Amino acid sequence: MHMIKFILSGLMLASVSSSVNAQVDSLMIRKVYDEELHHGDAYGNLRYLCKNVGPRLSGSRNAEKAVTWSKKLMESYGFDKVYLQKVMVHHWVRGAKEQGIIIDGQNRTTLTLAALGGSVGTPKQGITAEVIELQSLKQLDSLGETGVKGKIVFFNRPFDDKIIEGVPAYMGAADQRFSGPGEAARYGAIAVLIRSLTFSIDNYPHTGAMQYLGNSPIPAAALSTVSANQLSNLIKKKKSGEVKIYFKQNCETLPDVASYNVIGELKGSEFSNQYITVGGHLDSWDLAEGAHDDGTGVMQAVEVLRIFKKIGYQPKHTIRAVLFMAEEWGGQGAMKYADEATINKEKHIAAIESDEGGFTPRGFRFGVSNTGLKQINTNWKDLFAPYNSESMTIGGNNVDIAYLKKTMPDVILIDFRPDSQRYFDVHHSANDIFENVNKRELELGAASMTALTYLIDQHEIKN
Amino acid sequence: MHMIKFILSGLMLASVSSSVNAQVDSLMIRKVYDEELHHGDAYGNLRYLCKNVGPRLSGSRNAEKAVTWSKKLMESYGFDKVYLQKVMVHHWVRGAKEQGIIIDGQNRTTLTLAALGGSVGTPKQGITAEVIELQSLKQLDSLGETGVKGKIVFFNRPFDDKIIEGVPAYMGAADQRFSGPGEAARYGAIAVLIRSLTFSIDNYPHTGAMQYLGNSPIPAAALSTVSANQLSNLIKKKKSGEVKIYFKQNCETLPDVASYNVIGELKGSEFSNQYITVGGHLDSWDLAEGAHDDGTGVMQAVEVLRIFKKIGYQPKHTIRAVLFMAEEWGGQGAMKYADEATINKEKHIAAIESDEGGFTPRGFRFGVSNTGLKQINTNWKDLFAPYNSESMTIGGNNVDIAYLKKTMPDVILIDFRPDSQRYFDVHHSANDIFENVNKRELELGAASMTALTYLIDQHEIKN
Repeated sequence: MHMIKFILSGLMLASVSSSVNAQVDSLMIRKVYDEELHHGDAYGNLRYLCKNVGPRLSGSRNAEKAVTWSKKLMESYGFDKVYLQKVMVHHWVRGAKEQGIIIDGQNRTTLTLAALGGSVGTPKQGITAEVIELQSLKQLDSLGETGVKGKIVFFNRPFDDKIIEGVPAYMGAADQRFSGPGEAARYGAIAVLIRSLTFSIDNYPHTGAMQYLGNSPIPAAALSTVSANQLSNLIKKKKSGEVKIYFKQNCETLPDVASYNVIGELKGSEFSNQYITVGGHLDSWDLAEGAHDDGTGVMQAVEVLRIFKKIGYQPKHTIRAVLFMAEEWGGQGAMKYADEATINKEKHIAAIESDEGGFTPRGFRFGVSNTGLKQINTNWKDLFAPYNSESMTIGGNNVDIAYLKKTMPDVILIDFRPDSQRYFDVHHSANDIFENVNKRELELGAASMTALTYLIDQHEIKN
Repeated sequence: MHMIKFILSGLMLASVSSSVNAQVDSLMIRKVYDEELHHGDAYGNLRYLCKNVGPRLSGSRNAEKAVTWSKKLMESYGFDKVYLQKVMVHHWVRGAKEQGIIIDGQNRTTLTLAALGGSVGTPKQGITAEVIELQSLKQLDSLGETGVKGKIVFFNRPFDDKIIEGVPAYMGAADQRFSGPGEAARYGAIAVLIRSLTFSIDNYPHTGAMQYLGNSPIPAAALSTVSANQLSNLIKKKKSGEVKIYFKQNCETLPDVASYNVIGELKGSEFSNQYITVGGHLDSWDLAEGAHDDGTGVMQAVEVLRIFKKIGYQPKHTIRAVLFMAEEWGGQGAMKYADEATINKEKHIAAIESDEGGFTPRGFRFGVSNTGLKQINTNWKDLFAPYNSESMTIGGNNVDIAYLKKTMPDVILIDFRPDSQRYFDVHHSANDIFENVNKRELELGAASMTALTYLIDQHEIKN
């Protein structure tokens, strides 16, 4: 009897203590959301970054403006430490606007296109050549040199619209942009055009990074999906070799320049050499304002620290907002951050990245085992449910935080996961402007990242 | 031994059969999504409704155009039956654009405003009077006749931005619009201005229905939130009585006219006199195109039947797409539909309404008991999880379907629940245009409604 009583008391005690914990957490999370939804700075800060700094491709003067401004911003919030982390970055410039024309006998049709980041330009007089349409790198391999030599290769595989989420649809088409130029160059193609990586059918080209994979550089550009459809329809109607393209772009790569990651810290009261990183990337492509990619992410990361300070939460671990440089083209900022962390023997327990847009939060993806995920769901899902942000799944693949894992196998990588339907409408295009960000969606994301950071700081995560 | 073996076999059989069921359902739902995401008509149909029909306030010529067009559309899909259900509706017209000016000594500031639906106009020369700002109907009661007689009452309570979802934030402020004019008239106010019901701070007035509650009609209009803030700031700076408003609107109510609900049916193969209704409302406010409110809902309802037909699914129950008339101002279409159903002794097992915008689906709200909800979650949540549309909660309050419940207590009412953050940015304002609808978000909603209709048709719902 006593034994049973003892066990029961123990169980009751555990249950009481866990429910008190949950109540404390629940109240703290409510405080976080109240602060952000009622007094949040994310939207105003994002407006400044988009409208007063603007496009900020790494290596550009605007990128330096963004560094200076965001450092000052964090200093103005009185974070415990705000500093720059120097890093050499690529310096690619687009030059004058690209021109593209379909030549079909006597007919001329203008193409809307934009050079891919890192591409070489065309010769000054442009390139005129036959174009062939391909759906995949595999198709390129099977055509080989005899099929593509001296031609412009046009990769036109669209997003698979049956895929529910944006990121996997993007990943299913992105090899054309990343590797298409290099692979086509290997077979002697003289240029590459790719269909823009988006679900949307519109007239905005979407740029992005590409690689030559050790082959001779050839000019590579993205066509708007409207232009891609026009070109494809014409190619289907004509005999092989009848459709030519004139195409001129003026981009070039200048010598690498020095730039910076911008880092703000709240020092941990118990484990000051144990870190939780929240981050996004400060650089953006040059065609617009980098609002969703990734102005929202960096402003949310800053907000995590601002909210903690404002509501008077003293973290146990050191919390860092890291505004990474050069995510879009090179990744040098992320590598530098991971290298410095390793050199300084920092212990990183978790890193959260927001780089999928500032849309309504759905939850997070965690780089944990199934057992770890089950634990997260058991402990925390209910805490996020009132905020509709409770979807916790396996993942943690965003690129700026991924480098940490190489030297710190125990760090838990976490992707902030917003609704994914609109992201690729704006991604890397002239549409990625402040006006396409919704204030509350942005704030809900900032609050959910802050809430998760708080929970990790309090309870850590077991893998 | 035999007995145990028998029980085990029975259990195994049940479990196999349930998992076979789930597999069949899962494949059918995948088919539904594939059809809509790859060949969906919702977006093209919505474009037509918004751009070729346009604003369609009940009683207007455009509303009749919408009736004719949507009937033809459903006929073109070859539904088993397409017909009109005649109903008398209000006919309110806005007239020439409203004018509003703040008079502050020698200073004049223009207000952006729009008459509320059903309001009377001002006298031709307009109204000029002192304005007082109130936060609530309770404050109005406490001021009473001595406080408000002869004045313009300005209700300025904003949305509570700490509320996570749009609909409850709206409901928390909407009494000012619904009842404010009638209550203020009771105390002798000569006009009412309300702060537009939106989270957004912009210069678009948001109209909507209001009631005089048996009191003498006085003119009532909505101010944009920018104008409301301007007016409020000025009132705070000035002495009582110093701030006046000049205000003129030209709306009037004409005699009721005949209009129609538009109904399409797929006849049930087993229970043809048992109905599942999917619906939205065809009418819209007059300030824009009624894209999210509720073009998306009606086009999704039509899509449910189109998808079933296209993928060759023969429903057991009769499935009806009902495009309700006059939801925005009067609700006569909904009443008519419920009345006819009762007169014809139809058995309605469920009704799903989409009237919260065409945004990314989150799930559904069901008018069931907690036990019923548990059952729904146990059986169906996993089927919707791959589509991120698995949030199943208690509710079922959308107004067009609600009338059915009065005479059919067993009907299960269901609200389609999309993401709610952007809805009130556009709701009842000039911003509610086609361009603010995302194709995939709209389609995902149509597919999720179709999937739910399929599941109810196959398995029904227990309350």
